[in-house]
This record gives sequence, structure tokens and C-alpha cells, in this order.
Amino acid sequence: MEYPFFSEKDSVDVVNGRMADDINPRLKEVMTSLIKHLHAFAKDINLTQAEWEFAIDFLTRTGQICTKERQEFILLSDALGFSMLVDAINNRRPEGATENTVFGPFHVEGAPELPMGSKITLDGKGDTCLFEGRVLDLEGNPIAGARIDVWSDNSDGYYDVQQPDIQPKWNNRGVFVTGDDGRYSFIGIKPVSYPIPDDGPVGQMLAALGRHPYRPAHMHFMVVADGYQKLVTHTFVGEDKYITSDAVFGVKHSLVAPFEKLDGGEAQWRSEYDFVLVKNK
Amino acid sequence: MEYPFFSEKDSVDVVNGRMADDINPRLKEVMTSLIKHLHAFAKDINLTQAEWEFAIDFLTRTGQICTKERQEFILLSDALGFSMLVDAINNRRPEGATENTVFGPFHVEGAPELPMGSKITLDGKGDTCLFEGRVLDLEGNPIAGARIDVWSDNSDGYYDVQQPDIQPKWNNRGVFVTGDDGRYSFIGIKPVSYPIPDDGPVGQMLAALGRHPYRPAHMHFMVVADGYQKLVTHTFVGEDKYITSDAVFGVKHSLVAPFEKLDGGEAQWRSEYDFVLVKNK
Repeated sequence: MEYPFFSEKDSVDVVNGRMADDINPRLKEVMTSLIKHLHAFAKDINLTQAEWEFAIDFLTRTGQICTKERQEFILLSDALGFSMLVDAINNRRPEGATENTVFGPFHVEGAPELPMGSKITLDGKGDTCLFEGRVLDLEGNPIAGARIDVWSDNSDGYYDVQQPDIQPKWNNRGVFVTGDDGRYSFIGIKPVSYPIPDDGPVGQMLAALGRHPYRPAHMHFMVVADGYQKLVTHTFVGEDKYITSDAVFGVKHSLVAPFEKLDGGEAQWRSEYDFVLVKNK
Repeated sequence: MEYPFFSEKDSVDVVNGRMADDINPRLKEVMTSLIKHLHAFAKDINLTQAEWEFAIDFLTRTGQICTKERQEFILLSDALGFSMLVDAINNRRPEGATENTVFGPFHVEGAPELPMGSKITLDGKGDTCLFEGRVLDLEGNPIAGARIDVWSDNSDGYYDVQQPDIQPKWNNRGVFVTGDDGRYSFIGIKPVSYPIPDDGPVGQMLAALGRHPYRPAHMHFMVVADGYQKLVTHTFVGEDKYITSDAVFGVKHSLVAPFEKLDGGEAQWRSEYDFVLVKNK
């Protein structure tokens, strides 16, 4: 029989050769690469039958722990640096533009739009912090009408949606729209570090790898303006003990923001950060 | 800050650099390779955010459809040729030895041990077939006391465990132990092709790839003898229309067995096949 049956050596060609010619060309490209890398992985390390069985069970448990409120496969992607990689691939920007980072699972659509300077922290917990700065284009011109959606955890390390019975609705969330000066300002808290959910398969994996589940303190920003690429990012508290070991690899050097202690005034801290957007192509 | 934060370019080193030094060395080896290939995959094809979201959803659905009776991740591994690859890596054998193929999900422990020549097909359906041959070592000597566990679908394409209310218990299953001549023989049916479960995510994937879900007709054999490596294999019906397109890539050239039509006698077909085992190291 002339047909090339399966063999260890030809495994990639045999599997990829089975795809029909008339399928979606992008699907073909993605699957061809997936098979190539998946098979190379098993060959590189001589994956054992027992390791394969463990992987099948791990993936099954990861799928079965997912609910409407919990997405363990996203967590897995995050913990393997895969989410950050996909984010980086899809948001390559010129020097000077603000860098993206992962969106995270805690954004909520529909947060109240508030006047500049408003206080978004509603539970009275934690150190207050004045966040302010400008939304600019690459030439340094202010962008008017930029919509800035912000969210953070409270000082106990939980987002409002994680504690719907404890925290006020929209605690540490708000939307601000810039005027002609491109400026924004609001009072939140100086955010605190918190662990990603670590009571499932991903937590077990992190423990086995000798990694902790913590994310360094950060404030989330999503900035959208007509004619510009959407920016999804955080600013980070540089002094955080987890700043160099974010469980999801979200930190970039340029996203570490200043947090300065204030003497009196309406907030205890101040963090100034300008967002620089890139025009749509 | 000197610390190497995440970047597209350094993503593999950053993620792998996070593993602790004192973890299980094999786990470190496996994960280091996994990260390398997983990230190379995303970079090679510039995986989009929408494709990533599709993959997260696909894996989640694959996990959620799993039950005690259904293992969709094994099915996925099978359909990607990954199960066969792991089987091949772990069962490299010298020329002349019978080749392994995938175990499959339908083996059942505890099938009745029967005298040589027994009929294992109990539902009276399908063409009967005499399976016979020898269990040999690499030098051609018969192996006594080899335990041959056999199983196949019935002529409707279902294993007994898939139809517990329809088929007799142990239909098309049995265990035979060789004597000094190393010979085995039993009467089953000439097996028929059947589809792997295709009403879930894996079936959708196969359809998108222009692939059918069928396995060519085969008889399962597991042969165990003291002092020899375990053999898990099938023999295939060469004339089957799916012989060159097994949905799980299980066919190997050497496993295509003769099936000859008999004129009268106790069976309608005869398939002779010798199994050659390799000594344990």
C-alpha cells in the first residue's frame, strides 16, 4: 500500500495532509502550525503515556471547573503568558505610544459616567489616590472626547463584582470623557495586590511550578477615542512586592506609574500618567 | 528597573524564567518545552484576539461535554494524531516486532477467558470470521502463556458497552491464553467501520477541516506475556473504504491483515495474523 500511514517521523505531514483543500484558508494555516508545534513538543520531551494521561485529566478538570463566573482556561492562558503574548502580537505600537496589557476578567460594561475629579471609591476603605493626566496623540496634542473607563479592586483585594453583597455597586469604577485639554482626573484608592483564583487546576499548576498566584497592585484603564486604536492597559504601583513576578505577566516597564504621598488635600496619594494613543490606520 | 518584564520577543524566557529552581525537574523540562512551542505557535501565525477567544471557548466546551462515559479531550488528542504520536514515542520497537496502535476507549477489564476456537460474537449479527495465528518472539519461537484480550464492534458499528440494553454482555469480547504452540484462534465477526462521536466540539472541528469521523474496520488485540513488552494493537480490514483516512490515524501498514472469504465451514471469513513480541529490557 502506497498511502503514507502514520509514523512518529511523518506524524505532522500525515495529520496535516488529511485536511481538505477547500476549507477556510486561515483555519488551515492555524491548524497546520498547531499540529507542527504540538507534535514537536511531544517529540522534544518524549512525552510519556502517564504524562499524556495527566494532561488529559488536567484539561478536563480545567474545563469542568468553568462556570459563568469563572473561566479557568483564560486563567491558564494568563498563567502561561499566552494571554499577554496574544495581546502583544495584536497591539504592536510605535515608540512613545502607551503599551497595552491584558484586559482581565473584571471589567463591567455600563459603569457610570462621572464628572472629572469624581470619587469612584465608595466603600471608604483604603488609601485614597488622585489619578490624573492627559490623553494625547503621538505628537503630544490633547485628544478631546476620549472615553476613559477605569476599574480597580478595593483595599481588601476584591473587585465589586466578586463581592456583590459586601461592596457598593460600581465601587472603584467609573467612566470619564476628556474635554479639549485632554485631561482626566478622579479619586480612587491606591490599589493593592491580590491573588488570581488559585483553588483549581491553575492554582495547582502554579504551586507545582513554585510560583505564587499574586498580581501586583494596578489600576485598569480602557481608553477609546474616535480615530484612534483602543488602549487596554493598567498602571502599576512600582513598589509592590510582586511587581517583578505578576502571576499573569501583565507588567511592562512603561506601565509602572509614580505614586506620590500627598500632605493633606483631598487624597492621600497622587498618580499622574499620560496615555498616548495611536491613530487608526 | 532592570527586571526583564514581558515582551513579545522575550516571552518564552520571561515565562520559563519564573519557574522556581527546586521544582520537579521533569515537570520543568516538560513545561519549558510546552511554553516554547505554545508561544512559537502564536507568533508563527500571529494569532488574533478573536481566534484566541474561539480557542478558549472550544477548550471550555470540550471540557464541559466530558462525562464518565465520554472523554472529549481524548477524542481531541486522537483526532489531532497526538494520541498516536504518544503511543509511537512510547512503543518504539525493532524491525519484525508487531507495531502498537491506540488503545481506544472501548476496552473493558474482566472479559471471560475462553477455550481456543470459541465464538465471541453473541448477537448473531454480521459475517463470522475465524481469527487465528501465533504469538511469537523476535526469533520466531512460540510464546506460551500469552494472554490475548480481544474486542470489536458488532456489525452495526457499536461496542457492547455503547448498547448495554441491546447487545449481550461481553458481545465480541474474550480472553485467550496460548499453550506451548503459541497459537490462538477464535470466531468473531468481520468488523465494520464506525464513526467516533461527532456531535461535540471535536466533530465540529473535523467538519471544519473537511474530515470525516470514521474509523476503518478493525479488531482490537492486547497481548501480554511474562518477560515481554505489552502489545496494544488492532488488525485492520484492508479493503475498508476508510483504510487510508482513519479519523484517529491508527492504521499502520503492517497492521492491515488478510481477510479471506471461506467456502463453508464454521466461519464465513478467516483472518490470520501472528503477533511478535519484544523481550523486556
